[in-house]
Amino acid sequence: MASEEGAFVEPRVAPSKYSERVVLKSIVGRSDRGSELIGERVVIGGWVKSSKEQVKDLPQQPDSMAIVPGKQKDVSCVEILQSRIPLFRSIMKILAASHTPIREKLEILAAKPASQPSIVYLQVNDGSCVPNLQVMVESSIASPSHLTPTGTSIVAEGVLEQPSIPCKHVVELKVEKILHIGTVDPARYPLAKPKVPLEVLQGYPHLRPRTITVASITRIRSALTHATHTFFQNHGFLYVHTPVITTTDAEGFSEKFQVTTHCIESDQKLAPKATQDDEAVNLENVKAAIMEKSKKIEELKRSESNREALFAALEDLKKANELASQLEAKDKLNHRNSIESGKREFSKDFFSHKTFLTVSGQLHLESYACSLGSVYTFGPRFRAEKQQNRKHLAEMWEVELEMAFSHLEDVMACAEDYLKFLCQWVLENCSEDMQFVKKRIDRSVTDRLKLVASNSFEKITYTEAVELLMKVTERKFKEKIEWGVSLTEEHESYLTDEIFKRPVIIYNFPKEVKPFYARLNDDGKTVATVDIVLPKVGTLIRGSQKEERIDLLTARIKDLDFPREQYDWYLDLRRHGTVKHSGFSLSFDHMVLFASGLIDIRDVIPFPRSHGNVSY
Amino acid sequence: MASEEGAFVEPRVAPSKYSERVVLKSIVGRSDRGSELIGERVVIGGWVKSSKEQVKDLPQQPDSMAIVPGKQKDVSCVEILQSRIPLFRSIMKILAASHTPIREKLEILAAKPASQPSIVYLQVNDGSCVPNLQVMVESSIASPSHLTPTGTSIVAEGVLEQPSIPCKHVVELKVEKILHIGTVDPARYPLAKPKVPLEVLQGYPHLRPRTITVASITRIRSALTHATHTFFQNHGFLYVHTPVITTTDAEGFSEKFQVTTHCIESDQKLAPKATQDDEAVNLENVKAAIMEKSKKIEELKRSESNREALFAALEDLKKANELASQLEAKDKLNHRNSIESGKREFSKDFFSHKTFLTVSGQLHLESYACSLGSVYTFGPRFRAEKQQNRKHLAEMWEVELEMAFSHLEDVMACAEDYLKFLCQWVLENCSEDMQFVKKRIDRSVTDRLKLVASNSFEKITYTEAVELLMKVTERKFKEKIEWGVSLTEEHESYLTDEIFKRPVIIYNFPKEVKPFYARLNDDGKTVATVDIVLPKVGTLIRGSQKEERIDLLTARIKDLDFPREQYDWYLDLRRHGTVKHSGFSLSFDHMVLFASGLIDIRDVIPFPRSHGNVSY
Repeated sequence: MASEEGAFVEPRVAPSKYSERVVLKSIVGRSDRGSELIGERVVIGGWVKSSKEQVKDLPQQPDSMAIVPGKQKDVSCVEILQSRIPLFRSIMKILAASHTPIREKLEILAAKPASQPSIVYLQVNDGSCVPNLQVMVESSIASPSHLTPTGTSIVAEGVLEQPSIPCKHVVELKVEKILHIGTVDPARYPLAKPKVPLEVLQGYPHLRPRTITVASITRIRSALTHATHTFFQNHGFLYVHTPVITTTDAEGFSEKFQVTTHCIESDQKLAPKATQDDEAVNLENVKAAIMEKSKKIEELKRSESNREALFAALEDLKKANELASQLEAKDKLNHRNSIESGKREFSKDFFSHKTFLTVSGQLHLESYACSLGSVYTFGPRFRAEKQQNRKHLAEMWEVELEMAFSHLEDVMACAEDYLKFLCQWVLENCSEDMQFVKKRIDRSVTDRLKLVASNSFEKITYTEAVELLMKVTERKFKEKIEWGVSLTEEHESYLTDEIFKRPVIIYNFPKEVKPFYARLNDDGKTVATVDIVLPKVGTLIRGSQKEERIDLLTARIKDLDFPREQYDWYLDLRRHGTVKHSGFSLSFDHMVLFASGLIDIRDVIPFPRSHGNVSY
Repeated sequence: MASEEGAFVEPRVAPSKYSERVVLKSIVGRSDRGSELIGERVVIGGWVKSSKEQVKDLPQQPDSMAIVPGKQKDVSCVEILQSRIPLFRSIMKILAASHTPIREKLEILAAKPASQPSIVYLQVNDGSCVPNLQVMVESSIASPSHLTPTGTSIVAEGVLEQPSIPCKHVVELKVEKILHIGTVDPARYPLAKPKVPLEVLQGYPHLRPRTITVASITRIRSALTHATHTFFQNHGFLYVHTPVITTTDAEGFSEKFQVTTHCIESDQKLAPKATQDDEAVNLENVKAAIMEKSKKIEELKRSESNREALFAALEDLKKANELASQLEAKDKLNHRNSIESGKREFSKDFFSHKTFLTVSGQLHLESYACSLGSVYTFGPRFRAEKQQNRKHLAEMWEVELEMAFSHLEDVMACAEDYLKFLCQWVLENCSEDMQFVKKRIDRSVTDRLKLVASNSFEKITYTEAVELLMKVTERKFKEKIEWGVSLTEEHESYLTDEIFKRPVIIYNFPKEVKPFYARLNDDGKTVATVDIVLPKVGTLIRGSQKEERIDLLTARIKDLDFPREQYDWYLDLRRHGTVKHSGFSLSFDHMVLFASGLIDIRDVIPFPRSHGNVSY
């Protein structure tokens, strides 16, 4: 099947700017699925997702596929099934569209002598889009056994042609030259088997993006980050970085990770120190010597033979006891000194005081807002709480924003616009991935995105929400609902999924269930806070107007018994030119969860965990 | 000066979408500096940067400024100086343009009885742009003493008019209603004094963005982040998040911060534990009891009066010694067990093994690239090294990217394009801030940005660079230059600033001075790595093609004596379907430094430090 020689075809595939290969999205991701590109010469790269091999024993005919007559049945059997039985067809479609390592075992149908020429059909993907490119390689170009294992990487040059066998593709690459093969040993490759269960996948975070599911979600996640920056930059927000290592606790009660160089030192550097000379005179050793000596005294006593030796031993013990008393006094003094200065633990540390991984950029962000107006940040946040529910991770990314000269209503309006913008963006820019997600993960996911993008949100106070829930008789909630309690996930989902059937904005919560910095309302009981609850995923956004009155904020910090000196800089923002300001935070990982339909986000985010021998 | 009643003026200022006020950029940041907006009613918010007060004793005249004749001299003196002496005018301009808390003390010129009506002129800024808005308030509307202190916040409604006194502004706001005042006590406000030195500013990271310098740099920084996302998204890169808490060391030799919940526990939770019952039978206490008992024996011995008591005491001591021996044996066993399992320190920790703050996202990013093609990340990186130079911080943000199917030349091309894009973006989108930076910080900053944006970079090998530097006779370098050494900042700056006078790409370094993962070149001595050196700031970008051959990579890890098991997952990327891939990282904080002309970036980035009583 020689390409039309002499007739030079102008390339219409955009070459990759920083690679010799073209991305597959520019071929199979086009609206025509590549049909307009037939005849073009390209170099492609990617990983084999599945493959099949066909024996070839006739000399090749131009523009026709030579298939061994006896073998044709095997293939056409599948073809016939596909064309006649809709369900089988759709299953085949799903399998073929998947990047999950479902290795089509069709090649075993065509058992052949090793020397017999064959043609290999590879489904190749480079991570740029959902569909694979079909790549056809004759065995004279490369050994089929090197190419066919799932996970093999290839870089190949060839010409785009019409598929040589009936298939769902409109184009295939006829390879003329293989430029690179990265082999795979199927016996050792963790993703070689068809359908790797999610629990197994979690053990291989470094290979996980090779599955179609994680690849799709990674692309959706990337789109959501870009949508976020686009939205806020378009609205004149400045992007700032709040510190990750901090001394301030934004919430006053969260479990935190400590950051230190001291544990490492005590591990590595104090150990060699213990071999120093002063070891010989430390209290421990003297105490041990006293034990030895008193044992010896008992023995001498028991034998009753040598009174002189006994008295010498008693004298010796006396000296040891004196030394022990001195050392003990010194130790006590050192201990008291160190407790008094409070620096026993941290004097040798990198920072001279306790530092933590930030649980929220909130307070630091306010310092920017109280200078620059509208600001946002996007960074990692850390919580060391033991996992109470499946949605919790030690390390999660959050979008936080803060606006000077704004009130709670402004937060509600901005948050609603932002969520609508995100949903619309994903619908417009990730249609292929959303189709996959809809097919394979969650049938209703695009409907939910459309629901958010095109309906106004329901807006009720906390008090109204409690009244509504208290009237519910057909459902018994696990946590009893009454004014003053936190709304549980069950309460919230009942409001969104059962009562309103759309996103719900709940505002003005009791001050006891919200952070100290929320602005006290005139009723003296509630604070200007807001939760935005979305169907299925729950509360995605938490916002508040901040207490700008220094007397009230100081009183609240005192009431809660927080260490006042830790919040002194924060109070400065109210002490000097205070302004009304408000903001919210979005749990970005939960937004990805909402957009991808995945309940258990632990499958999506790489983070350190102890999975057998994997340390990532 | 009543506004034309009845004549409704169509507002031409875009209202803020999420605030009652309009941002000042939409007034004074316009190309006409607001002159087209005269007559419009607006609500504005901001902080007072400087102020002056004028006594008023005549009934107000429409469209003319009533100034006490006797006082006019004081003001016009300044005006005359401004109009006649160019240098004085430009100093006044710089002072007036500054957000740095230079409080114009002009109000003291106009000493007046407390009851006398006056007019206050406030220079107000809200952080959205460099220029201030002049705001005019009559004392009948609000007490001047509440408005004039530097740092005071106001929200005010009024009409934009032509300035009532000759000044550099083309528009001023005549206030009709003050909606909010956030007062400042000048005696307590750290930025109340004119010209706060940078060292003092460092003690107030939470107020620092209120200075014009930090505000400008924050805006430039925000623009650079948006430019970064725009560049990579335009080129089809996916944005991914690599883990911040990790067990893998990307470089194998950096000083790291440990992340733990264990230190906190040993601090807080073990203390109460020690009051438990089992304290009574621990080895420590038994040893102490033995000491007590043997002291008592000595005393009995000394007195020689009561042999029965002595024997009873010896019997007692014997039992105590037996108990101590048992406990000691148990302790030793426990200790051996814990050392063998290696989990003594971490068994109680949140993660079951040692975890660190990431020094680089490099290795994790490769796992994405080896699945998805072209990816980038942007996040915080941490180094616990003691500061060797002024440019080093414990917490810095880095942009990292990795491209599958690409070589070192692709990295050079992409990095050059990216740097040009960033510089061009800042020139186009931050012209006001750049004008300020040029005036106040670094005269040559825009020339340097233009140099990068519009010149091709010089490209030389490490070997060529060394040869060039060895020929230099007119300068003696602190570190001797010879093949095999790392290039110092001095070497690099000589190449860019003296020899080539433009950005220089240096590539193919000796393998000993570069990380283990760099691809070995055919010469067996150098690796496919690249440094991009920019004028003044030094190396901004470090890139490399990665070693994709598993045998060579394994050998390198062994040579360097790295713990093999820590890199096993990384080797998997070569074991299963390996591809050639390359990437680079940009020190984002140094890029901000380059664009803003500031040498000491510690002034720009908030991060925890021990500044007296400030814990941020």
